[in-house]
Parts: sequence; C-alpha cells; structure tokens
Amino acid sequence: MKITRVETVPYSIPYVKPLRFASGEVTAAEHVLVRVHTDDGLVGTADAPPRPFTYGETQSSIVAVIKDLLGPQLEGLSPLDREAAHARMARTVGNPAARAAIDIALWDLIGQSLAVSVTELLGGYTDRMRAAHMVGFASAGEMVDDAMRMREQHGITTFKVKVGRRPVQRDITACRALREALGDDTELYIDGNRGWTAAESARALHQLEDVGLLFAEEPCPADDIAGRRWLVQHSNIPIYADESVSRAADVTREILGGSATGVSIKTARTGFTHSQRIHHLCEGLGVEVVIGNQIDGQIGSVCNAAFGAAYEATSRRAGELSNFLDMRDDLLTEPLIIKDGTLPVRQGAGLGIDIDEDKLRHYRHDG
Amino acid sequence: MKITRVETVPYSIPYVKPLRFASGEVTAAEHVLVRVHTDDGLVGTADAPPRPFTYGETQSSIVAVIKDLLGPQLEGLSPLDREAAHARMARTVGNPAARAAIDIALWDLIGQSLAVSVTELLGGYTDRMRAAHMVGFASAGEMVDDAMRMREQHGITTFKVKVGRRPVQRDITACRALREALGDDTELYIDGNRGWTAAESARALHQLEDVGLLFAEEPCPADDIAGRRWLVQHSNIPIYADESVSRAADVTREILGGSATGVSIKTARTGFTHSQRIHHLCEGLGVEVVIGNQIDGQIGSVCNAAFGAAYEATSRRAGELSNFLDMRDDLLTEPLIIKDGTLPVRQGAGLGIDIDEDKLRHYRHDG
Repeated sequence: MKITRVETVPYSIPYVKPLRFASGEVTAAEHVLVRVHTDDGLVGTADAPPRPFTYGETQSSIVAVIKDLLGPQLEGLSPLDREAAHARMARTVGNPAARAAIDIALWDLIGQSLAVSVTELLGGYTDRMRAAHMVGFASAGEMVDDAMRMREQHGITTFKVKVGRRPVQRDITACRALREALGDDTELYIDGNRGWTAAESARALHQLEDVGLLFAEEPCPADDIAGRRWLVQHSNIPIYADESVSRAADVTREILGGSATGVSIKTARTGFTHSQRIHHLCEGLGVEVVIGNQIDGQIGSVCNAAFGAAYEATSRRAGELSNFLDMRDDLLTEPLIIKDGTLPVRQGAGLGIDIDEDKLRHYRHDG
Repeated sequence: MKITRVETVPYSIPYVKPLRFASGEVTAAEHVLVRVHTDDGLVGTADAPPRPFTYGETQSSIVAVIKDLLGPQLEGLSPLDREAAHARMARTVGNPAARAAIDIALWDLIGQSLAVSVTELLGGYTDRMRAAHMVGFASAGEMVDDAMRMREQHGITTFKVKVGRRPVQRDITACRALREALGDDTELYIDGNRGWTAAESARALHQLEDVGLLFAEEPCPADDIAGRRWLVQHSNIPIYADESVSRAADVTREILGGSATGVSIKTARTGFTHSQRIHHLCEGLGVEVVIGNQIDGQIGSVCNAAFGAAYEATSRRAGELSNFLDMRDDLLTEPLIIKDGTLPVRQGAGLGIDIDEDKLRHYRHDG
C-alpha cells in the first residue's frame, strides 16, 4: 500500500453559541478535513482545526502547506513507515495541525489495512474514556447552567473552567459558583489561556485553594519565564502546560525549567506519533498528563479518545472530549454519544471515522 | 486471539571462545527460549539471556518467574493489549530479561497476526542496521586479530572495546593498537562494565583522547554518584549509561543527575514496549542512544535489529548485533548473516524467528 495523494477539504460548521476564552473566541468550526489516499483504495481520515491565535495556522494555510509541501513529500511511501514520513515532513517547520492531521490519517490507514483499532495499535490499555467538558466565559449563572446541563444530559462530572479575565475576581466568583452548584464529587480545573500575569495567577490560585481544583492550565504566558517559575514554586495547585508544549522539546524545556508540573496532550497538535513520544517522555520524567481538546469536532474527539484509551496515564483522568456538543452539526454518519460521562472508543478497524458525504458537500467551501 | 500459555525452554549453547569483560565472563549461552501460545495457534517467540552479575536473574529464576508469576497473569489477554499486559506484570518487580522476552513475544504475535514486520509496527524508519562488534579482554595482539577478522569476514567497521582492567595502561595499549591496526575510518568506543573508579576512568579517558573514541560506556559504577558526576563534567568523551539505565526512570535519574550523557538501549532488557519508551524519552530530552547487546544469540540480534531499524536515532549509528558470531551454534533454521557490516531486518510477518526444533531438542536441558 502506497500513498498516492493527500486531499484537503476546508469546511465550516457553526457553533450553537460562541465559545469564549482568554485567547480568543470561536463561532464556527472552520476546519480542514484531511484524507490520505492510497493505491489500493483505502483512505485515511483526520481533521485539522486551525488555531491562529495559538499556532499561527489558518484554514487556508493548512490547505496550502499540505498541497504544496507536506502532501507531495509523502507520495509513494507506505503509511506504515511513519518514521520515514516524519523525517520527510521535518524538512518543513511549524504547521502542527496540518502535520498532526496527516499523521492521524496514516494511523487510520494502518488500522484499516490491518483490521485493528488505533487504540490497540498504540497500546490497548482500555476501550473508553471519561469526558471532561469545557465551560467558556459567561456570567457565573450561565456557566453553572452550562455545567449542570452537561451533567444532566451526558453524566459529565469533570469540568474545565475557562479563566484569565480581569478583574480576577470575576473568574473566582464563577469557580465558587460552580463548586457550590455541582458539589464536592465534581472535578474542576481551570484554564487561563495565558490571560493573567504570574502575579494575578498567584493571587487567584491562592484564593481558589479551598475550591479544590485538580490543576491550573496555562494561567500566564510561558514566555514570562521568571514569573512563571516563581508561580510554579509558590502555587499549591499544579500548573499544567498546554499551548507552551506543542513539541517534545518544549515539554523538556518547561518541565526541567521549572515552569510547569503537568502536560496537556492534544492529538490535533501532535498527532498520534508525537503524542506517543510526549506521553512516553512525560511518563519517564514522572510528569502527569491530561488529554486536551483543540476545540475539536467529532472527528478530533474520536482521535483524542482513541489515543487516550491506549495508555494508563492518559485514561486515568477525564479527557477533554465534549467540545463537539456545542456544534450545530458534524460530519460523521454515526454521531458520537457521551453517556454516563463516558465516550467509548470506536470499535473496528482504524479510527472508525465514516464521513457523511452529503453533509461534507453542504459544509465545504472550496467551490 | 487470546494468550493461553507462556512456555519456557532453558537451553545451553557453548561459545567458540570465552567472552571476558570487567563484570564477568561467558563461556556458554545459558538462555531461556520464551514462547507465548495463543488460542488460534500462533506462537510468539523471544529469547531471555540471564545476566546474574548485572540484573540478578539466572536461567532458573527466569523459568520460575514466568511459570509462577508473569505467565499466568497474561492468560486470556489479547497480545495487542500490551499496556494492559504490562500493567498486570507490573505487580511483580525486577526480572527485566523475563519481562522483556514476554513483551517481545507479544509483538512477534501482533506482527504475525497482522502480517506486518515488527519494525514497521514500531515506526518503519529503515530496513537494516550497521553492526558493531564487541572485542573482549585478551592481549592487545589477540584483540587486534579479532577485530581484523570481523572486518575481513563481515565488513564490520565499528568496534566496542571492553576495558576496565587494571592497570589502566593495559586497556589503553589495546585501544591504541586497535586504532593503529584499523586506521582512522574505523569507529571505536569502549565499555568499562563499571570496572574502573571515576579517577581511573578520568585518567584513561584523558590519555585516550587522541584515539578518537565515539563514547565510553559505564566506565565506573553509577552508584559512585559524586565521582561519576565529576567524571561526566571533566571528560571530553561522552559517557554512556548501560547497566545503570534498565528502566525509563533510571534514564531520567542518570541524565538529569548529570551522571551520563548518552543511553544504551537493549531489547533483551526492556523489550520493545519499554525500549520505545526509553527511545522517546531520550529523544525528548535530547540524549543520544545506541542499540546495545546483552550477549544475545541470533534471536536477540534479530530483535535488536528489528527495534533499531524502526527509528532514525537508533539506526543512525552501528548497533551491537554481532555477539552471536562467537557462538558454536544457534537455534534459527535460517542463520543470520552480517555482510558489508550490515544486518538486514528479517522481512515478513512479526520477527521472522523460525526455530530449528532439532537443534532446540539437542541444546535444551529441561528433561
């Protein structure tokens, strides 16, 4: 089986309501469907969600870099030879979502051709993951309503609360309201998307100590180096790196530099091949991980669950798998369902991604 | 496919000549053939070479721990679900060669059942490895003869020279003789097997600077903590950890503790699953690796080559793949051949290990 062509389809699906957080807002999923075609007819599928405010990629840049650079480099290779594929793609720097989508599509092809699920190819620790839901900026009351609805409708009991607003007190009020409304059995953590300064973060984390947070993600910019090290030293709440660890070398830099105590792994950012590397690196360093969400649709959530379920460390805690619930529609013929707070891994060969071509025709906008 | 039984066959095959080094000597391969049986008839095969002076395992202890503890824990599991298998085996500590052989047999089963080579399952970077040969203790003249013969007969141009004798000058003389006889195009590195003190190592490495060594492996004990850190700081030759890094956590400890600058990966010690973890950890830390040899026979050499060829970092330099050349006989129906200094990865499904049952009957000694 040889790769013949990498196809990119830009599409747009609106959100039910805008998702707001410290580094931006999203009103529609403006993603790129990536399909790797082979000479024996199998097609590997993945999704590339551009995050211009985090990684500098746009929908058009993803289409362009795959069409002009990454795609042609892969023609003629076997999807199994992914280390050789990455060595070729390494001639181009950056473009994490484009690169990750290609990697995921290669694993989907491997799984399909061998009739094995990607979770089992990666390690096969378990077959499901608990889901955490992201609660975006709104009034404290609306944020509580959102979480309560997710708990009632989907049994979700872990919530990631977006913070990073000013004054800091707004977010503290929201976190307290969530803890009071949801009770002590619910898991809460916060994500600042680099919105606060280190000093604001320290003050907020100190005031939030009795709220019982699992950890605080990217409260302040990783490039505020001295400030962040000071924060990590002084916080009783673990500080997780997310945007600042988009490559294994970044993990080493942040962890050994004392700027973070945990790591978010996102398959939309590091695919499977490099997410596996980051998992193994973190495990070897003795660093905890969480499966994060790059505001993924259903395709991306399938991928996050497939990876997370493969290992003990990634399936130990709830993964961020539910952002797709805020989209008006999606591309899968068989939609994902989160029940009792759990998303099962798709069974069968590869990733089990079956695209509804009518929907894709409706939402695509490349002509 | 479910695991039904793990079989162990202790056997003994003599060496052509004893292999001598600072931590012991070997006159016969007293190994354990490990076979994992499944309900659909496929059998995964691996080899466990006990190294009592390094890991505390013996031929009998490997048979016992697999029979009494590790084997029964795996019954009923799919070989694909190796993370679940390792979680079960983690209830037992130590016993690296026993655990590694089981892990390798699981990967052999996965490859066989999916009709894919283990190298491709792991990453598929290339399909061959350059081989390095180990030159054991003897007179300088005999050591030169050994290396010259390996270069002439097999095209090997990388040699690992055993050192760690006293007085230090004996080894220095041997290294100089090898460099003079072999010329500047040959790669040389040394392995002390913890035989020297840190001060002796520093003196020897200083005197060896103009010999052009790639690196020096375990010159002194890793538990001489202050001494080894001092050595690493003062040596212009990179110091590789081998016996001291039998687990990922050891790698972190040695590298971050400043006690080593490179790492030897041995599949006979960490199987494929944990060798992959160590590879990914080292790559993320920015640490160089070499594929080492646990005085493996042909089966173990097949495994080392299969793993090493999967990644760029492991196939970049010659791996230690030629110890089997010193054995009088072996168990494979189709013996390995090193030609032009290169060992090709066995093609086809799994590891391509086909045991000559007549030979196994002859060399086994369990009744």
